[in-house]
Amino acid sequence: MALIVQKFGGTSVANAERIKNVAGRVARTRSEGNNLIVVVSAMGEMTDELVDLAHQITDAPDEREYDMLLSTGEQISVALLAMALHTLGQEAISFTGAQVGIRTDGWHTKARIVSIETERIQKELNAGRIAIVCGFQGVDSEFNITTLGRGGSDTSAVALAAAFSADLCEIYTDVDGVYTADPRIVPEARKLPMISYDELLEMASLGAQVMQPRAVEFGKKYGVPMRIRSSFNDDPGTLVTKEVASMEKVVVSGVSLNEKEAKITLVGVPDKPGVAAQIFEKIGSANVVVDMIIQNVSENGLSDISFTVPRDDVKRAIGVCEKIRADLGAKQIRADEKVAKVSAVGVGMRGHSGVAAKMFKALADEGVNIEMISTSEIKISCVVGADRGRDALRAIHKAFDLDKAAAMIEG
Amino acid sequence: MALIVQKFGGTSVANAERIKNVAGRVARTRSEGNNLIVVVSAMGEMTDELVDLAHQITDAPDEREYDMLLSTGEQISVALLAMALHTLGQEAISFTGAQVGIRTDGWHTKARIVSIETERIQKELNAGRIAIVCGFQGVDSEFNITTLGRGGSDTSAVALAAAFSADLCEIYTDVDGVYTADPRIVPEARKLPMISYDELLEMASLGAQVMQPRAVEFGKKYGVPMRIRSSFNDDPGTLVTKEVASMEKVVVSGVSLNEKEAKITLVGVPDKPGVAAQIFEKIGSANVVVDMIIQNVSENGLSDISFTVPRDDVKRAIGVCEKIRADLGAKQIRADEKVAKVSAVGVGMRGHSGVAAKMFKALADEGVNIEMISTSEIKISCVVGADRGRDALRAIHKAFDLDKAAAMIEG
Repeated sequence: MALIVQKFGGTSVANAERIKNVAGRVARTRSEGNNLIVVVSAMGEMTDELVDLAHQITDAPDEREYDMLLSTGEQISVALLAMALHTLGQEAISFTGAQVGIRTDGWHTKARIVSIETERIQKELNAGRIAIVCGFQGVDSEFNITTLGRGGSDTSAVALAAAFSADLCEIYTDVDGVYTADPRIVPEARKLPMISYDELLEMASLGAQVMQPRAVEFGKKYGVPMRIRSSFNDDPGTLVTKEVASMEKVVVSGVSLNEKEAKITLVGVPDKPGVAAQIFEKIGSANVVVDMIIQNVSENGLSDISFTVPRDDVKRAIGVCEKIRADLGAKQIRADEKVAKVSAVGVGMRGHSGVAAKMFKALADEGVNIEMISTSEIKISCVVGADRGRDALRAIHKAFDLDKAAAMIEG
Repeated sequence: MALIVQKFGGTSVANAERIKNVAGRVARTRSEGNNLIVVVSAMGEMTDELVDLAHQITDAPDEREYDMLLSTGEQISVALLAMALHTLGQEAISFTGAQVGIRTDGWHTKARIVSIETERIQKELNAGRIAIVCGFQGVDSEFNITTLGRGGSDTSAVALAAAFSADLCEIYTDVDGVYTADPRIVPEARKLPMISYDELLEMASLGAQVMQPRAVEFGKKYGVPMRIRSSFNDDPGTLVTKEVASMEKVVVSGVSLNEKEAKITLVGVPDKPGVAAQIFEKIGSANVVVDMIIQNVSENGLSDISFTVPRDDVKRAIGVCEKIRADLGAKQIRADEKVAKVSAVGVGMRGHSGVAAKMFKALADEGVNIEMISTSEIKISCVVGADRGRDALRAIHKAFDLDKAAAMIEG
């Protein structure tokens, strides 16, 4: 008898009707002879209502109390899903994070899972019951309720799958799976039957929001087989797994576009040790996450340092730069809010030369100017003008034959 | 430094504005130099919303899951109240029933408190913090969340006051305190400065819904001094305490009216042992609570048995009687849905003779016919026609000089 962990997000349980649908799907999986742990997020609008209530009281809620408040959202969902399963004649029982011993550190609103007790859930599974567990939440060593931050229910599900050595962790969402590109921008994008943890991680951190990066890392660390699929249809979705040989036959698995970037350039910075450290230490303490960094040394001993940040943070980042400009001796600070980042991802590019060249050529043929380049072992990213981001994405998708790649995977 | 437990019901925390008002009151009590445990119910409409959600899923929700669902209501309230206290510069921390070890039996939706751990709250009190605790809820021995049933937050507050030997338990509600009669029916009714546990218990069970009978019993058992007062003004309210000498100078402390009763009569039942037991056992198993019971034996060996039940349960009670009529050999079943019960309560009546006579005379002078009579040590109740209930109440109130009784208490 296999053990499957199923996770349903806020859209999947948005109202009573959808909760009944989820119950139907869970019951079907159960009747196929599987043991089941189900992880549920808060109903879509419930979280908004709770946040709104908090903000009617204060602009700066205490984080411990905020967790106390928000964690009720999942508790409501699990109880309702248990009731819905009972109406289908299934034995099911709901649990808070505290009740099944999901222990975290004490970092409220962004806690990390430290350990999971398996005893209580195992007892229910042995008794033939479906265990329904609140996603997104846990308790610290003093039994204060903590939450895991954005997308934390994914992490709860994967962590439970790891703790119970589940045969599969199904992440139900509102998309069919992972695509070679965003189908809203690239109509010929294909759904990938399979993707590696590393590729999904790169795609996720590049803005393809199918699954929380932290949850993918967790899955990779413990080798949890995961399937990303839609709660609204029966499409098998995309299997996320460790690298297998067939993946390497495909050079590039997918392309992604992040249109919410901005570029800042410090012009004419003296080229001496410690300058870069000083800049990015200060920007980091202002809670701005820097993405790409490029430094060029010019002939006269002065260098230009360029970096990208989320567009929402650009004012804060410029403020930090202005403050340290005199110390740095930089001549000028330039900001360009109109940039986009286009990336190609694939574990297959490790074994292939000429991938970067092919990408650059595709952009050149499309008449797109490249402003910055950054590479990792399985990813190449280029910063381009925001107005050409979508053209760039389509050009790269085509250049790597992603609309036809299915044949290669099967081959 | 005194320790005060304050309990605020659903109306007192119905919205953000009211939660801020409650925070103001709590902060004031704190700044007067008291340690504080605050017990809060769910926001008025929150419980209705949760119940509505459950009923969108099923007509018969599992009771464990129902408790899981409903207990989120108080958790929302305590978190919001903590936030509101923080904005006033107060140190406050919120807790679920589980977190502070409110242990109950496993009887979901109607659990009884078994024990309360004091360690966690004491630690916070010692650190100078206000402890805010979810009313209405606890956990059983397996950490399943339980709820205490209707008005359970009163019980939570009194139980906490008992566990911590609090100097006072203040029950905040939407009325000023306990009155000699319902002021909506008897305009000259007076607020009582003080009442005994037993009197309040009789008044509560008679339908004067200022405080849950179970909570009053708890207070009596542990000698918790309680004060019933309004969260909307500064009236000192009514002190509930053990009997003191001055109380006995007042024969009748208050009168009450229950207009939601119905009377059922089994006519011509053979007068043999076990008949009454058979009837009321069956009615009890149908979950109907019987109030007054009267049996008269007539000359021919047949008796009439009359009893009262809540009007909402009368159909169910008649159904039970119909089923056992043949077994009983009863000639006829009569039901009168148009009755009311009027009662006079007072610990002082123990030492006085003629109290019943005075009450009956008041009713006779008012032209009200008495259908049934029932007495306890500190209470006399009469069933009368529903259309005369209010007249009867006013007549008794006047007969016992309740509009003037303040002078006697002070004397």
